[in-house]
Formats: sequence, structure tokens, C-alpha cells
Amino acid sequence: MIDLLKTRRTIRKYTSAPVDDALLNRLLDASARTQTMGNLQLYSVVVTRDEEMKRRLSPAHFGQPMVMQAPVVLTICADFNRTSEWCRNRKAVPGYDNLLSFINAASDALLYTQTFSCLAEEAGLGVCYLGTTVYQPQQIIDILGLPRLVMPIATLTVGWPDEVPALSDRLPMAAFVHDERYHDYSPADIDRYYTPKEALPENRHFVAVNNKETLAQVFAEIRYTKKDNESLSQLFLDTLRKQGFLE
Amino acid sequence: MIDLLKTRRTIRKYTSAPVDDALLNRLLDASARTQTMGNLQLYSVVVTRDEEMKRRLSPAHFGQPMVMQAPVVLTICADFNRTSEWCRNRKAVPGYDNLLSFINAASDALLYTQTFSCLAEEAGLGVCYLGTTVYQPQQIIDILGLPRLVMPIATLTVGWPDEVPALSDRLPMAAFVHDERYHDYSPADIDRYYTPKEALPENRHFVAVNNKETLAQVFAEIRYTKKDNESLSQLFLDTLRKQGFLE
Repeated sequence: MIDLLKTRRTIRKYTSAPVDDALLNRLLDASARTQTMGNLQLYSVVVTRDEEMKRRLSPAHFGQPMVMQAPVVLTICADFNRTSEWCRNRKAVPGYDNLLSFINAASDALLYTQTFSCLAEEAGLGVCYLGTTVYQPQQIIDILGLPRLVMPIATLTVGWPDEVPALSDRLPMAAFVHDERYHDYSPADIDRYYTPKEALPENRHFVAVNNKETLAQVFAEIRYTKKDNESLSQLFLDTLRKQGFLE
Repeated sequence: MIDLLKTRRTIRKYTSAPVDDALLNRLLDASARTQTMGNLQLYSVVVTRDEEMKRRLSPAHFGQPMVMQAPVVLTICADFNRTSEWCRNRKAVPGYDNLLSFINAASDALLYTQTFSCLAEEAGLGVCYLGTTVYQPQQIIDILGLPRLVMPIATLTVGWPDEVPALSDRLPMAAFVHDERYHDYSPADIDRYYTPKEALPENRHFVAVNNKETLAQVFAEIRYTKKDNESLSQLFLDTLRKQGFLE
């Protein structure tokens, strides 16, 4: 898998070929071998294939075209509902309506998501991870009918690739690996690690079309702004409370 | 990888053979091909090999023997510090001291963790995921010197396997995959999905030695109790605030 990974790219355009049920189920099932807290498997996956359901999910993902275009959309959820139901049916009182339990379930769900992603790519499928899942979770909850103690945490669009996008860059390993203790970043470190990224033609273009002076400004002032992050944080917190994870 | 995954087990006992630096670095580097928010790579990995550092980390993980026994311990952190430093060095004002940004960075970190896990197992290494990382994060922060906007989220112990534990069970796929909409669990569903697990000799033994009536009681009343979850939730929230993610 390591060789495959070195040339992996996120796929946003899919052919019209369907994703076979048997293949999808094989991948969903095998991914469950992922490590999980106390072997409780604190996640659920909602599979969307229906056109009308995709149309309803689309605005929650800001209309990103992958949602409509992909034959399969997976919404992976942190799920303490099933385990709590199990407890209630077995003379046990569940105590999972709290922040730590959300973190535990979200961790399980994200590890599962990434195993699925690796397996799907190994099978030749293309996937795109939609970070928008945590921006307007309430919409997704309403559309998919997620009960208390279930929170959507990741979305993958899945299909057969209809593009070969350029390989995206990554920071050098020294930028994110620390030996024994965290070494904070000096201005010289920042220059060393980020200058190659900033010098890429696609990033220079990105800065130019956005009328900014630096690549960091495109991120901080347009793509992921303080104002948006703060209002989305409040939405996320409200939804976490509504789903029962902050009792 | 799918065949490998089907027989994967968490490894808690390691031989005394060291993990070669070149191999470890190859895996740490390749794992960075994982999808990441805006290609920002919102994570850092602290590599612990030093005996004294392992000894100091051990209590944060409740003395689980893997920490001392494994040649390598990786602490994977949600990291918005590096990106914020980049912004400050590039005439941009970062706005990532909020809950959504923590969720984004934690997601990046967990996806990276799982890719690393898959690659390490493919290379023949054994890994154990320590969920204890989020129980006493402040201890880990102090030991590893993690600055503001860096939060430990996962720990992997890594080494060459010195055991072949039994394959652990998993729920049937129907228990966690939902078609189009979430279907809540009836008592009959719970029976269907959980009875095989409850009937396993190791789980019956687990119930017996703990003097409980049901397996769910062992989880809810001993392993992951409401009381513990609530006090650990408060600790987690306090640490998240101290690390600057709740401004």
C-alpha cells in the first residue's frame, strides 16, 4: 500500500459507472477490523445512493459537486446510541452523554473512515473527504435522521475516477515530526518548511487570483477565517449539546 | 492490504529488536499523503524512544506496559500552532483558537494516525493504539512540551510483534451500516447484533471474573463508567481551554 499511497490523490470527478454493492460492502465490512475503543465500534455509516437524498445533502456540503456526481456518499458518524441501547437492553446504565465519550466515538469513526479510504483506493476507487461535515451538522442530522448520541463527523464521496489530478505537495517530514520533545518553530523554520510550498506555480496563482500578498493570507482571510471558524464553532457546540453529548 | 487487515490484531508485546530509523521515517513520511484540510497538515508527531521519556509518559497511560516495552512510542497531536506561526510570519492573522479548529486538527491527526497504523502493519510491525491519550492530556503536554494550540489526540506504541493474540470479534456489518437513513435499534436488533459477541467464551469469562450479570454491565459499570467519563470530560475541557482552543 505504501507505493499506492505515494501517488494517491483526492478524486473529485467520477465516471458514470456504478459502485457494485458487493464491492462496497466488502470494503465497509473489512474496514471494521480497525482498532476501536474496548471493541465497541463507536461509529455508524449511512450510505447514500439515492438521487433525492444526495440533492438534500448537497447544501449541507455547500453544494460541492462531488455530492451529486459520486455514485456513493458515505456519512460516517460518531455513535454512542447503539452502545447505549445495548446497555439499556442488558440491565446496565450507560454513561456516554458527555464530551469525552464524543471524542472517543469521533476517534473510532475517523480511524474507520481512513481505513475505508485506504481500502477503497487500493480497489481502484477514488474518494474525496468532505470537511464540510462538521460545518452544518444539524442539516445532516435532520436529513439522515440521526438520533441522540449520533453525530456526523466525516463524509466520503466514492466512485470510479474520471480524472488524474496533479499530485499535491506536502511539508517535509521534519516540519511535523519532533524528536522526544516538541520543538517550536522559529521564523527560520517557517521559511525553510513553507517556502517550497509558497513557490509552487499553483500556489502563486492562488495568491494572485485572490488579490493577496501571501498564501497564508488566502487561508486566514478567505478560506478559513476567524469569523467563520467562530460562528461554526458555536453551531458545532449547539449541535453537540442537542445530540446529548454535553449533559 | 485488505487481506492483511482481515487478520490484523493489536500487538501489545514486542521483541527487543529495535525499529530502524530509516524504516520509521519512511512510514512517517509516506503517511503524510493522507488527505488533510486545505493541505495544511494540522498535526505533529512526537517520537519517543528515550527510556527516561517513556518512564515519564507511562503514568499518563495508566502504566500500561506497552509504553515501556515498545521501542517506539508516537504521540500524534492536533496542531494549529505551526499553521498559526506560518500566518504570523506571513502578514496574516490566524483565527484558529476555537473548537471547530480543534475538531479540524484532531481529524487530520486521526486520519494520519490510521494511515500510519496500516502502513506499519503492512511492514510487519505491530502497533497498539492507546485511548488513554485523551484521559490525562495535561500530563502529556507537560512531558512533551506541547505549546498552545497543540493537543495530544492519539498514541501508538510500535515494535516488532512478540505475540499472536486471538483475532478479536466484530459486529456484523448490518449493525453499523445504514441504508439512506439511520435505522434506530429495536430490542430485537440489539439481540441479533450483540448475542454472538456475548456468547464468546472470552466474553463470558470476562463477565464471570467481574462478578457481573451481563457484558454491557462490565463496560458501563467497570471499564467506562459515567462517573469516570464525566470527570475526564471536565479534565479534557479544561486542557482544551488551557491549550487555547476555546477562546
